[in-house]
Amino acid sequence: MKIAVLGTGMVGRAIADRLSTLGHDVVIGTRDVQETLARTEPDWLGNVPFAQWQQAHPAVRLVSFSDAGAHGEVVVNATPGTVSVAALEAAGAANLAGKVILDVALPLDMSEGMPPLLAVANTDSLGEQIQRAFPEARVVKSLNTMLADTMVDPSRIPGQHNVFVAGEDADAKATVKSLLSEFGWPDEAIIDLGGIRGARGTEMYSRLLFTVSAELGTYDFNLAIVRK
Amino acid sequence: MKIAVLGTGMVGRAIADRLSTLGHDVVIGTRDVQETLARTEPDWLGNVPFAQWQQAHPAVRLVSFSDAGAHGEVVVNATPGTVSVAALEAAGAANLAGKVILDVALPLDMSEGMPPLLAVANTDSLGEQIQRAFPEARVVKSLNTMLADTMVDPSRIPGQHNVFVAGEDADAKATVKSLLSEFGWPDEAIIDLGGIRGARGTEMYSRLLFTVSAELGTYDFNLAIVRK
Repeated sequence: MKIAVLGTGMVGRAIADRLSTLGHDVVIGTRDVQETLARTEPDWLGNVPFAQWQQAHPAVRLVSFSDAGAHGEVVVNATPGTVSVAALEAAGAANLAGKVILDVALPLDMSEGMPPLLAVANTDSLGEQIQRAFPEARVVKSLNTMLADTMVDPSRIPGQHNVFVAGEDADAKATVKSLLSEFGWPDEAIIDLGGIRGARGTEMYSRLLFTVSAELGTYDFNLAIVRK
Repeated sequence: MKIAVLGTGMVGRAIADRLSTLGHDVVIGTRDVQETLARTEPDWLGNVPFAQWQQAHPAVRLVSFSDAGAHGEVVVNATPGTVSVAALEAAGAANLAGKVILDVALPLDMSEGMPPLLAVANTDSLGEQIQRAFPEARVVKSLNTMLADTMVDPSRIPGQHNVFVAGEDADAKATVKSLLSEFGWPDEAIIDLGGIRGARGTEMYSRLLFTVSAELGTYDFNLAIVRK
């Protein structure tokens, strides 16, 4: 499948790498290709410059947001949540019409440091904002409740743990569930939260995720819903 | 230990019953004792009228908020979150000074129906509001991430799952952890989130809890943090 991943950070790289390894035709979209390739310093999370990552992952092509929007049958939003709508606008509303947008982003507001605030919460969510901004696209919120490494390889966390999907379009959710299955998520681990409003639940959970992470000193965990 | 539980609903009853069975000297506090006892209809969740519950639990005495505040060495806030500060004011700031307030409430705003909004979130939390309103009390947020039955009997959910504590005072958290231990929570299931600001994480998780509950058709689950 032709898939575009928007965002050159840790999450975008992990998803693009995994999808490419699985045999998909993957591009990563960025605002300014030359600027992204010109970076020579690790990012604030210590990830190597993109050009260095690119050398190790030649099958994944770096393109503009617009070219990414044209390429992807599925468009994965892995940009920072506060710039996601702008990135998707650059990808092109016409390009996105009818397509699945897999939104894995969190609308983190770092103005008070860690744990982050949310730029939108409670009465709205990033997933809903994106669906409203691109009414002809079919937005599915998923994977935004865990570390990038776990998103694309759930078997690295032992035992039963969960991933959520939320979105208005059943076919789009089926497409995303199929990708989750390729990543290694068992069917019974996928909890369908209904419409895109379910994004509020998974985005607001991130406050607990970051607080737990600070106390445990690791992001290497995932949430499980344990039933009676 | 002398314990006061504020709130006559499902959560207050479950905690009072369990603490009383464990041998504690337990009162339940309410705004108006006569009014609470005069109710003859089940509440909106289908719980029997308090007078009927009282007959089956004679060791738990119903008293005013003020008498409850005077009685409890530990005061459990199990009132609706939007009236919790008022209930604690009725219990008396002087009564609460120096005492442990175990806050298990959620600041649910039902104005849009289910799943509820939060009356406070993201930049503040109910736990923090209570600590600010009663600076001489020692507030510990805990147990607000699950069904009342699970709070007081974690063994009803199989396997590993978690409960959180957040608060500024280490001795107060030790007192709460001791009560959690009496309820049956293993030490390794208790995750300390640091200061009372950690309440934001557990309160904001409630949006996911209510959304998952609606999709699964049950509250009979709990969250587990599964580590690598």
